[in-house]
Amino acid sequence: MIIKIDARKQAVSEIEILDKVQQESAARRLDDLETPCLILDADRMDRNIVRLRERLAPLGVSLRPHLKTAKSIEVARRVMTTREGPATVSTLREARLFANAGVRDIIYALGIAPWKLAKVIDLRRQGVDLAVVLDTVEQAQAVAATSRETGMAIPALIEIDCDGHRSGVLPNDQDRLVAIGRAVTDGAELRGVLTHAGGSYAARGDEALQRCAEEERHAAVAAATILRDAGLPCPVVSVGSTPTAHRAVDLSGVTEVRAGVFVFFDLVMAGIGICQIDDIAISVLATVIGHQREKGWILVDAGWMAMSQDRGTSRQEINQGYGVVCDSSGRLFDNIILADANQEHGIIKVRPNSGATLPQLKIGDRVRILPNHACATGAQHRSYHIVRGASDLIEGEWQRFGGW
Amino acid sequence: MIIKIDARKQAVSEIEILDKVQQESAARRLDDLETPCLILDADRMDRNIVRLRERLAPLGVSLRPHLKTAKSIEVARRVMTTREGPATVSTLREARLFANAGVRDIIYALGIAPWKLAKVIDLRRQGVDLAVVLDTVEQAQAVAATSRETGMAIPALIEIDCDGHRSGVLPNDQDRLVAIGRAVTDGAELRGVLTHAGGSYAARGDEALQRCAEEERHAAVAAATILRDAGLPCPVVSVGSTPTAHRAVDLSGVTEVRAGVFVFFDLVMAGIGICQIDDIAISVLATVIGHQREKGWILVDAGWMAMSQDRGTSRQEINQGYGVVCDSSGRLFDNIILADANQEHGIIKVRPNSGATLPQLKIGDRVRILPNHACATGAQHRSYHIVRGASDLIEGEWQRFGGW
Repeated sequence: MIIKIDARKQAVSEIEILDKVQQESAARRLDDLETPCLILDADRMDRNIVRLRERLAPLGVSLRPHLKTAKSIEVARRVMTTREGPATVSTLREARLFANAGVRDIIYALGIAPWKLAKVIDLRRQGVDLAVVLDTVEQAQAVAATSRETGMAIPALIEIDCDGHRSGVLPNDQDRLVAIGRAVTDGAELRGVLTHAGGSYAARGDEALQRCAEEERHAAVAAATILRDAGLPCPVVSVGSTPTAHRAVDLSGVTEVRAGVFVFFDLVMAGIGICQIDDIAISVLATVIGHQREKGWILVDAGWMAMSQDRGTSRQEINQGYGVVCDSSGRLFDNIILADANQEHGIIKVRPNSGATLPQLKIGDRVRILPNHACATGAQHRSYHIVRGASDLIEGEWQRFGGW
Repeated sequence: MIIKIDARKQAVSEIEILDKVQQESAARRLDDLETPCLILDADRMDRNIVRLRERLAPLGVSLRPHLKTAKSIEVARRVMTTREGPATVSTLREARLFANAGVRDIIYALGIAPWKLAKVIDLRRQGVDLAVVLDTVEQAQAVAATSRETGMAIPALIEIDCDGHRSGVLPNDQDRLVAIGRAVTDGAELRGVLTHAGGSYAARGDEALQRCAEEERHAAVAAATILRDAGLPCPVVSVGSTPTAHRAVDLSGVTEVRAGVFVFFDLVMAGIGICQIDDIAISVLATVIGHQREKGWILVDAGWMAMSQDRGTSRQEINQGYGVVCDSSGRLFDNIILADANQEHGIIKVRPNSGATLPQLKIGDRVRILPNHACATGAQHRSYHIVRGASDLIEGEWQRFGGW
């Protein structure tokens, strides 16, 4: 379709528009792609999605996936239960762009700053059921005031602190919970409670993870009970993180689960024990550009700009550097990691003390690097090139958006 | 100007185009801006540029700034000596986009992968003097073969390893240098030698930095001498990193200096001792969204998506977390850092053991966070909002591009 656009109003400058038109390639196979670039194995992604759906089905909850990981309409449509949602977002830009694509049931899961409420109202006026989260009376009063002024009751969930890792009200802080709840209902809509077991990323082993999941559930349900006992509504009880979503055995009292990174998984999730390395659906394709043979180094054109600087596995038992290295079809090399990275240079080495051998890679050969953190690596790219399994055929290119 | 664009060919999806048009604001002051966002103080930037120009003027070299830090035409035009360059780039996309904006004298400073030569030829056909770098006979042979096949002699510089930190040929490896040089001149153009003292980032103190600068100079000049003694041309002797560019006292034999991050500076550079914190020209504007008062935490809406995950100062004497915190006019708070960050959440704390007091910040208040690494933080944003000094007036918005 043809669109007339004022270049000055573009999200990108004119010079980029010209570049994209010129560079549009008929890339059909992995070898045709410019590097570095992001590869998404849709088969692995589909399996990851089915696995969580099947796991949650008997637990009596709905899935509200976090779209901050993928920031893509195509991925969102595969992971959401319907084209309209439910969905979780981390920025209002995500909310707007997904709403533009038809998503209607959205929770904006970052504590609401009052100046952002005008944009929330804009979206609600367009028919989007956008809910906000908050953990202070002050925010609740702002939400209620805006609701009264506009005649539109904004739904708000109270964020609960289940493990001390970030935001939220303590689940046993009855006075504060009730005060916030009452402030919300003075004009706005109290939609429920929401919590996130971010501490689960540091858990190791199924027992510890199940404990995190139960703490997460218990905190949300305890807070809901306090609110209901005070005569306040609390229809939604929302919990979730990828680790707890994959280990919770009893979700009594919970109405929905949120999780994001499971669509792709990554080395941090593998290190926690939530997935296998073979489940990881995204990788960065890179080209060999040099060697330092005396040192056992292979230089590639994937640096931190392509991988991000996430070193999440450095805090785990197995430190994967900036990522583990596979051949271009995605087959893992044994103990070969992207050990160092500057902006556009990456240095591949044998994992220290592994006794492994550096693969024979020539200048121009390609590798794929599995990331520490899918949310972070994905954010460095503007699109996914879609493959299935070991095939080198590019089935399509899905756009990713960024920014705020 | 109006452009007709096929949305499918856009660098961004249709939903983003609609979003930008809808969101175009008449932001006139800092308080009008959505957060998080990137602020560039053009006064500080101008001073940083003037300072290096004046420092290099008596040293008999030209400046070839590295545009990978800013990735902006407006910044490039201020830092380059002329509108046509010279310039250094880290990706062919940078080369194309800056060429689209009139830059003609460019070195693509990442070891050349042979499949990229077609794009180099494309640019050279458009009149851009784009040179490549390499450190193997194999690459040299590929460059020479492409040159012969197309009838266009591609200029190549031999990358020299001055400090063992990354790529390049050792400066005393006479056989290899001459072999590469001869392979280049068999059809292509041997433009010179290039080196980068990446190890200087770990140096501490003026004496150590001057030693890095002299090692860098000496390595490049020694390699140039070997080539010339073998009857090969070596007109360009290119050295540079921001630390060595700011401490070199004698650049005899060098023809040009490359440096990038100095346009903005950052906490890593301040930690090395190359600049003051007050010289840092970019910052991330963020909004307070919550507190955990018992823990002494202030939550803001700038997480690692806005800052990057660069923890460069964690390897220095003063660990600045994810950045140091200022008020919205850019005045530094005493010992207040962004200590933790998730994707969109940041946690501000008092620097451990500093005895400082957390500032009184309410929900909705704004802060500015100075980054560890300007190249990394800048890369997370699509534009700079321009201010001057302590003024809150937004003078303009300069686009930044990304990708490959």
